[in-house]
Amino acid sequence: MQLGRLDHVGIAVPDLAAARALYEQVLGLEVTHEEVIEEQGVHELLLRAGGAFVQLVAPLGPDTPVGRFLAKRGEGVHHVGYAVPDVAAAVAELRAQGFEVIDPAPRIGSGGTTIAFLHPKSMQGVLVELVEEGTGDRG
Amino acid sequence: MQLGRLDHVGIAVPDLAAARALYEQVLGLEVTHEEVIEEQGVHELLLRAGGAFVQLVAPLGPDTPVGRFLAKRGEGVHHVGYAVPDVAAAVAELRAQGFEVIDPAPRIGSGGTTIAFLHPKSMQGVLVELVEEGTGDRG
Repeated sequence: MQLGRLDHVGIAVPDLAAARALYEQVLGLEVTHEEVIEEQGVHELLLRAGGAFVQLVAPLGPDTPVGRFLAKRGEGVHHVGYAVPDVAAAVAELRAQGFEVIDPAPRIGSGGTTIAFLHPKSMQGVLVELVEEGTGDRG
Repeated sequence: MQLGRLDHVGIAVPDLAAARALYEQVLGLEVTHEEVIEEQGVHELLLRAGGAFVQLVAPLGPDTPVGRFLAKRGEGVHHVGYAVPDVAAAVAELRAQGFEVIDPAPRIGSGGTTIAFLHPKSMQGVLVELVEEGTGDRG
């Protein structure tokens, strides 16, 4: 197993416009991608910060994973994403080692990526997303 | 104000050896720097993940900022660090805009950096560290 670069930090926010204003206008980062992912119940923005992204994720409603996270923990860091060359292979290897994987079958992420989440229980308290680049342009 | 690259994700861990084993041996990241910072009460490891670092921080005791974080929140993401060319100038600009800054006077971080933390209240729930590179080698 070889994690690649730190791809993004996912930050759960209740108000995407306010979060965008902070990161874009005050802190000077550039929004390079925006997407609504109905299946995951999120509206997300990617902002480039060097070789990694800040990912702002707002829930489409309270009964979504990010909506429940916000109700329970409040706004803040939701997950950390790392690039891997082959997310299915990475998941298979980690499962064989006893890791708890939230998405045994990788699924489609934003910007044409393929992703899988690893449970915080297996990652010392951090919700980790594995990200395989696709043909989409995330900026 | 212009945030630079995402420098690191700081992860609070109670057991640095166990966390190192996970990130180094299982996940294949390379430890490029290790430092005990008595003033901050932490023992930290930096692992390179592309253009950014994973920073594992373990408390030197329960009555330290990271020790109190672990007691209150448990292990997990503690802060997010961004590079800035001049941390004192960045802090002055943000304070003038009403941001709550934890370190109005920047202080010495690991690897010869100069750092300042911004309060989560001003950063939508995220403890943010501004990092100015020094002459030290962090890998």
